[in-house]
Amino acid sequence: MKLTVFSGRANPPLAESVASSLGLRLGQRIIETFPDDELYVRIDEDVKGHNVYLIQPTNPPVADHLLELLLLSDACRRAGAERITAVTPYFGYARQERRVKGSEPVAARLMADLMGTRVDRVIAVDLHNPAVEGFFSVPVENLSAVPLLAGAIRPHLIQGQTVLVAPDLGAVKLVQRYADILNLPVAYIHKVRGGTGDVSVRSVIGDVKGRRVLIVDDMISTGCTMVSAIEAVMAEGCEPGILVAAVHALMAGDAAESLARLPLDRILVTDSLRIDAGTTLPLEVAGLGPMLADAIKRLHGKDF
Amino acid sequence: MKLTVFSGRANPPLAESVASSLGLRLGQRIIETFPDDELYVRIDEDVKGHNVYLIQPTNPPVADHLLELLLLSDACRRAGAERITAVTPYFGYARQERRVKGSEPVAARLMADLMGTRVDRVIAVDLHNPAVEGFFSVPVENLSAVPLLAGAIRPHLIQGQTVLVAPDLGAVKLVQRYADILNLPVAYIHKVRGGTGDVSVRSVIGDVKGRRVLIVDDMISTGCTMVSAIEAVMAEGCEPGILVAAVHALMAGDAAESLARLPLDRILVTDSLRIDAGTTLPLEVAGLGPMLADAIKRLHGKDF
Amino acid sequence: MKLTVFSGRANPPLAESVASSLGLRLGQRIIETFPDDELYVRIDEDVKGHNVYLIQPTNPPVADHLLELLLLSDACRRAGAERITAVTPYFGYARQERRVKGSEPVAARLMADLMGTRVDRVIAVDLHNPAVEGFFSVPVENLSAVPLLAGAIRPHLIQGQTVLVAPDLGAVKLVQRYADILNLPVAYIHKVRGGTGDVSVRSVIGDVKGRRVLIVDDMISTGCTMVSAIEAVMAEGCEPGILVAAVHALMAGDAAESLARLPLDRILVTDSLRIDAGTTLPLEVAGLGPMLADAIKRLHGKDF
Amino acid sequence: MKLTVFSGRANPPLAESVASSLGLRLGQRIIETFPDDELYVRIDEDVKGHNVYLIQPTNPPVADHLLELLLLSDACRRAGAERITAVTPYFGYARQERRVKGSEPVAARLMADLMGTRVDRVIAVDLHNPAVEGFFSVPVENLSAVPLLAGAIRPHLIQGQTVLVAPDLGAVKLVQRYADILNLPVAYIHKVRGGTGDVSVRSVIGDVKGRRVLIVDDMISTGCTMVSAIEAVMAEGCEPGILVAAVHALMAGDAAESLARLPLDRILVTDSLRIDAGTTLPLEVAGLGPMLADAIKRLHGKDF
Amino acid sequence: MKLTVFSGRANPPLAESVASSLGLRLGQRIIETFPDDELYVRIDEDVKGHNVYLIQPTNPPVADHLLELLLLSDACRRAGAERITAVTPYFGYARQERRVKGSEPVAARLMADLMGTRVDRVIAVDLHNPAVEGFFSVPVENLSAVPLLAGAIRPHLIQGQTVLVAPDLGAVKLVQRYADILNLPVAYIHKVRGGTGDVSVRSVIGDVKGRRVLIVDDMISTGCTMVSAIEAVMAEGCEPGILVAAVHALMAGDAAESLARLPLDRILVTDSLRIDAGTTLPLEVAGLGPMLADAIKRLHGKDF
Amino acid sequence: MKLTVFSGRANPPLAESVASSLGLRLGQRIIETFPDDELYVRIDEDVKGHNVYLIQPTNPPVADHLLELLLLSDACRRAGAERITAVTPYFGYARQERRVKGSEPVAARLMADLMGTRVDRVIAVDLHNPAVEGFFSVPVENLSAVPLLAGAIRPHLIQGQTVLVAPDLGAVKLVQRYADILNLPVAYIHKVRGGTGDVSVRSVIGDVKGRRVLIVDDMISTGCTMVSAIEAVMAEGCEPGILVAAVHALMAGDAAESLARLPLDRILVTDSLRIDAGTTLPLEVAGLGPMLADAIKRLHGKDF
Repeated sequence: MKLTVFSGRANPPLAESVASSLGLRLGQRIIETFPDDELYVRIDEDVKGHNVYLIQPTNPPVADHLLELLLLSDACRRAGAERITAVTPYFGYARQERRVKGSEPVAARLMADLMGTRVDRVIAVDLHNPAVEGFFSVPVENLSAVPLLAGAIRPHLIQGQTVLVAPDLGAVKLVQRYADILNLPVAYIHKVRGGTGDVSVRSVIGDVKGRRVLIVDDMISTGCTMVSAIEAVMAEGCEPGILVAAVHALMAGDAAESLARLPLDRILVTDSLRIDAGTTLPLEVAGLGPMLADAIKRLHGKDF
Repeated sequence: MKLTVFSGRANPPLAESVASSLGLRLGQRIIETFPDDELYVRIDEDVKGHNVYLIQPTNPPVADHLLELLLLSDACRRAGAERITAVTPYFGYARQERRVKGSEPVAARLMADLMGTRVDRVIAVDLHNPAVEGFFSVPVENLSAVPLLAGAIRPHLIQGQTVLVAPDLGAVKLVQRYADILNLPVAYIHKVRGGTGDVSVRSVIGDVKGRRVLIVDDMISTGCTMVSAIEAVMAEGCEPGILVAAVHALMAGDAAESLARLPLDRILVTDSLRIDAGTTLPLEVAGLGPMLADAIKRLHGKDF
Repeated sequence: MKLTVFSGRANPPLAESVASSLGLRLGQRIIETFPDDELYVRIDEDVKGHNVYLIQPTNPPVADHLLELLLLSDACRRAGAERITAVTPYFGYARQERRVKGSEPVAARLMADLMGTRVDRVIAVDLHNPAVEGFFSVPVENLSAVPLLAGAIRPHLIQGQTVLVAPDLGAVKLVQRYADILNLPVAYIHKVRGGTGDVSVRSVIGDVKGRRVLIVDDMISTGCTMVSAIEAVMAEGCEPGILVAAVHALMAGDAAESLARLPLDRILVTDSLRIDAGTTLPLEVAGLGPMLADAIKRLHGKDF
Repeated sequence: MKLTVFSGRANPPLAESVASSLGLRLGQRIIETFPDDELYVRIDEDVKGHNVYLIQPTNPPVADHLLELLLLSDACRRAGAERITAVTPYFGYARQERRVKGSEPVAARLMADLMGTRVDRVIAVDLHNPAVEGFFSVPVENLSAVPLLAGAIRPHLIQGQTVLVAPDLGAVKLVQRYADILNLPVAYIHKVRGGTGDVSVRSVIGDVKGRRVLIVDDMISTGCTMVSAIEAVMAEGCEPGILVAAVHALMAGDAAESLARLPLDRILVTDSLRIDAGTTLPLEVAGLGPMLADAIKRLHGKDF
Repeated sequence: MKLTVFSGRANPPLAESVASSLGLRLGQRIIETFPDDELYVRIDEDVKGHNVYLIQPTNPPVADHLLELLLLSDACRRAGAERITAVTPYFGYARQERRVKGSEPVAARLMADLMGTRVDRVIAVDLHNPAVEGFFSVPVENLSAVPLLAGAIRPHLIQGQTVLVAPDLGAVKLVQRYADILNLPVAYIHKVRGGTGDVSVRSVIGDVKGRRVLIVDDMISTGCTMVSAIEAVMAEGCEPGILVAAVHALMAGDAAESLARLPLDRILVTDSLRIDAGTTLPLEVAGLGPMLADAIKRLHGKDF
Repeated sequence: MKLTVFSGRANPPLAESVASSLGLRLGQRIIETFPDDELYVRIDEDVKGHNVYLIQPTNPPVADHLLELLLLSDACRRAGAERITAVTPYFGYARQERRVKGSEPVAARLMADLMGTRVDRVIAVDLHNPAVEGFFSVPVENLSAVPLLAGAIRPHLIQGQTVLVAPDLGAVKLVQRYADILNLPVAYIHKVRGGTGDVSVRSVIGDVKGRRVLIVDDMISTGCTMVSAIEAVMAEGCEPGILVAAVHALMAGDAAESLARLPLDRILVTDSLRIDAGTTLPLEVAGLGPMLADAIKRLHGKDF
């Protein structure tokens, strides 16, 4: 079974990196948006009997990127592709994975069902809740970029002086995984109700005073959680030169502006989402290409 | 079984019109777009055991409107709705209903499959190809606005002096339906290869010289087909004061500008898509609200 | 993956032609009808892991031919066939592809669903409405015999003296495809209400007087449309020696008798349906075998 | 939920009988066969929200009757029927319920799957193998006409002088059910290899000499089994005036002629299949109408 | 639609409590285990058209309780039940909701799929990971007993002297929910690597010294986590009279013995699982019956 | 495609025998039961792209063995297995294959559906009712051990002195298959109502007096049927040294004790179920390993 890799329009540089790690060129395809906003997709490769990988994170515009992925997949299927794997290192809507008030959708399940109408397998990276794997009727490889990021940040740490910080309760398990690799102490931040009612205050549990801080989260979306956490550890008297690590640099809303105002030494992220080339943030990008290529090799099997 | 009607954000005025024709108020729901482009949907009605109708054409942004519809439907299903009908008077991607070159998707089938993951029935209006009904695994009511539009245009016709024109071969059956109602002669326009190779020229078959012309099509998308047809009948010496009728006024790209330059007497359309309030085109809008409300009454049954 | 071709009982000569073009012999199978009208099917080939093609148009008796196809497919599946493709060059019920009055079935969708319970792919030829491709949950290759027929008729044409004629509005796109290949002018026939009420009269749009006429349609079923068209062009004074081309020669009812009475020079058809050997019609048959074999080679891939 | 009963064309008298037992008239529908052998179906009743029962045994022509049933069902579903039950008192292909040689289909499962594409429930009568119930993905009511037939035959029995006979091993459980109701002794017939090789001889196990014989089977298809059994019990010296009882009088091939030659007192059957009015056989028909009507009442629930 | 409630054999007292809160008696059914370990199930109620609720947590023996539930559901479906809801306040395998090493199953998804073959809706209580809701293809009501347990424990608290403790990182969100209701401070326990390598030590983050401790978790399985947590807070010098609250009292292995050895004041649990009547533990049981009955009323709708 | 064979915990010796006949070692896997009765499964082989066979009869504990099988299959699927075949030589619940009273489940169909959620093919041996093949949506190979058992018993027969006996009506077809192979006469046992009402008495039809008897059935479950049959033929005066043959030695309840009390010469069974090593019964075991291995070779195809 031959291997063919296509890129949607969500993150072509990442797709190039994956293909290059595999020693392949990206498959030719045409993707256009008609004036009536309909997507037009056409593949220009023979995919008959091929094992096809479609590299397409579902970052904003989420619905368009999802649809583009499914159209590509439909085209490949009809053209005779044997198996189709969606490579969505960032999987949109993963945080809407349960009903809080009872009258919302479970949006992540809907996304999984829509994917399931056209793809045979999914490769994701650090799904917000690992249980989202179970939302799919097809097998999911939920890779983790934590070892990659931990390895990239290690040279910047001074052992004995750095403490890992989880910016909220949702990140406590993640921070523990970094702690296991980097052998660092941890601290947690959680919200408590302030004295004057419903204003919540962030409280740091654990000792950060006088230490260097590495705050880790799975993604930076609007940056609010991260900014609050940074302010909280600064208020506790941590050392300047704060480090931040996150897998997915969504940078929605005014995340970039908010973070730019803070005394950060380094923000370590992956290229699961396309990085704005003109950013002035102190970003350091750990490329996912080789890791995704390894996963594809492993799944594809004998030809590598 | 109680009846509840919700509107997505694609065409609230039409939804209001449907609800009002039914003597109902629209169901309360919250739809927001998060900074990371994810939609957040919540219904604020009790829909347990209800027969729910979601009014949401899938006009641009097509993918977002589709996803919004499916999220609303997922929320209703989980909240206990008994049956969910999507009312999509304009159904995006209906024209991509077959593979021309063999390496495209059949996008209309994909749309039908995605709809089929969450809705029990679909109401559409003048699907581009009526056979698209067969793409859905759920029943489809494909209503027609042709009688409505024909009735609205009748007062503007001078019998014996008007000829119906199909702007391309795709419209010949549609024009015949108008002809049967309005008892008018017809003419067709088709493309022929010009003398110098691949330049195509539009040729009018049938007599339009010195007559008033009513050009009908199912939709005005970018307006190219319509503009070419108008130019062709003008070149043939038709009377000024051309009439145009189309069900779906998509008005994509610079359709409005192109049409504004031509000597049109009247453009008759429906409100299947939200009409730009500030347009300077001689638009006359035949409202679909009562017709859709009738269809809902018919499907819902005994409570009306 | 090995390739095995079976024939049902609908059109064994075509199946022989396909197999021969592939350099294969047809797979052994037993098909009998029991006295209680139940079909008995058994395959006498090892198909384990094979790529199986079942040649079976669904011409009359339609239901039996469909069932025979599905029984063959069930037998192959249980015997371990890896993939099963139905080759139905004529696909019955394709014209019942939408509801006209609202209380009929969409028969073509039902056929597609029944096929979908047992086959993985379908190869068809000139589906009455190309959108029927989208009715199937499995991929469909909708081949066209138009180039084949156009090539076969070319030697019989005298350029500058022949006009292509569409016998009704349903054929206007088809006639355009012939026109593009043969570079001929076109004329259309459409029904208009006669003066005395509901009697419809066929009117020819375009110039056929004194010219030789080539009438094209996708199929000759009862022949009514074709006979009326021939009478209409004759009434307009076309040259004698009318040519007719159609992909599917269904010849239902008294089609053969009706056509035999008319001054036809030549009726060009394919062998998508089994041709009555004893016919006295001036039939010229363009065999589909090589074209279907090419499609199979293309889909089957590397072994050819 | 209103109840509507339609009849296909397989057995309208039975459908009339069912409707009459329910105090209803049959729903209006049009079923025609086009010259190209395609069925045309249209319903002329409002079925919106109705509980629809389609009376259609799948006797010969089996494939046409099945397709007719599915087309009716598709029409009802699209027209808004709430639930659709197929009433197929005789279910064709039930005997092809397993693979004997390994390279046949399991035709009964295929039939069940095809039914399952369009109906919600099935009512059958004395399925050849009761386990066929489990072939359906929808619930099946497998009614039995044995009590009805046993009651009808009782007046013709002389206790102490009649013996029940199973004509082959497949009928041993059935004969036991009659024996339990009628309190009669039983005998079995089985084939044994004759002395000269592969000629099989029917041997009677149990005592029939000088007794009156009642042979019971689930169906009379070609009559071969029954004729052989009659000859075997006659050879053993049973009393003249043999009685026969069977649920389904398929009478395929020359069953009627073969049986007419034998000294039968009475052949008791049901009207699961349409009875040839002109038969000269000593048929006594026990009507299934009331029993089927009772089952429908029971399933339909509260309105009766 | 009538409401009928059946109990499996997993927790009949809870089912009695639910039925009683609904003012109903439990539906009659027979459930037996044959000597060959096969379950035999039969319902002795008319359920035609009913809305059926099956009360059956899937506690040990998990597989048997699951199968019993599905057999009951299959029987109800075939007997004509309109809708079937599984009430599984404890849902086994919910903790196996993702692959840790990559070569395990996602057991919770398998359970959800098996449930989905026979039930229309699920009611659960405090699923281990709330995202498991998204594993089901049917809607899930994931109720919470936290308010019930918090209300029950409140009288035993001395404000200002009690601290809530999460026994591991998996419980941090749960403890926050108790904290929000009870307005108490929180402390966390997490494992850290000890000085001598891979021995892990539990470290308490937050202040418990001299305070009364309320440890909360979603379930007590083998009790290991809880026992370790208790030992950790005792080592930190908490006050005697430790309180424990957990929704599901699985009490697997020697949980009861281990806990009996510790100085616990009170263990608050629900009856989601059947409570061993002879226990000597200081158990206080908050009954789920009224809460489940309320959910059923809410879902069932108008009849209550 | 590589072949990998795993064993569940139901019958590892049989799995060893199959693997050994294939010249393979069993795949490494871990299966444990947690204290809370949940199964933990992990595979320790690379199965990417493999053709996997899971040897696991579903004997008692039936539900656990079924679940273990499905968990193994889920793990293999997610790890990339190409095709998964369940080898269940004994298939539990096969006897619950229809509803007798109308308010039970069709348990065998439920089992088939549960299997169908995770496996692609099933290999069974002598299913209680061969029609159970049709319950599965996937292909089933229903092998027969009758030739194997007949061959094994042949040396113990004295031609002309042995008679085959069917212990009840359910076994009449099975006994005929032995008769065809061994060329022996047959006798049947059936229950008749005794003189004093509902006490049933077993009556032997056919001659066993003074002959050696070989009683055959598909399984020995509780042994009741077999014990009654033995007593009946002894009462008829058969020779001592009775032979018994059955495919599945379930030996439920006190089957072993009951049979031990009777004067049996030999009980011939297969190892479809694990044989109790310490039994004192005169068991002779015909191993299924080579036959199952042959079937796997046949299905797997070219690599053998």
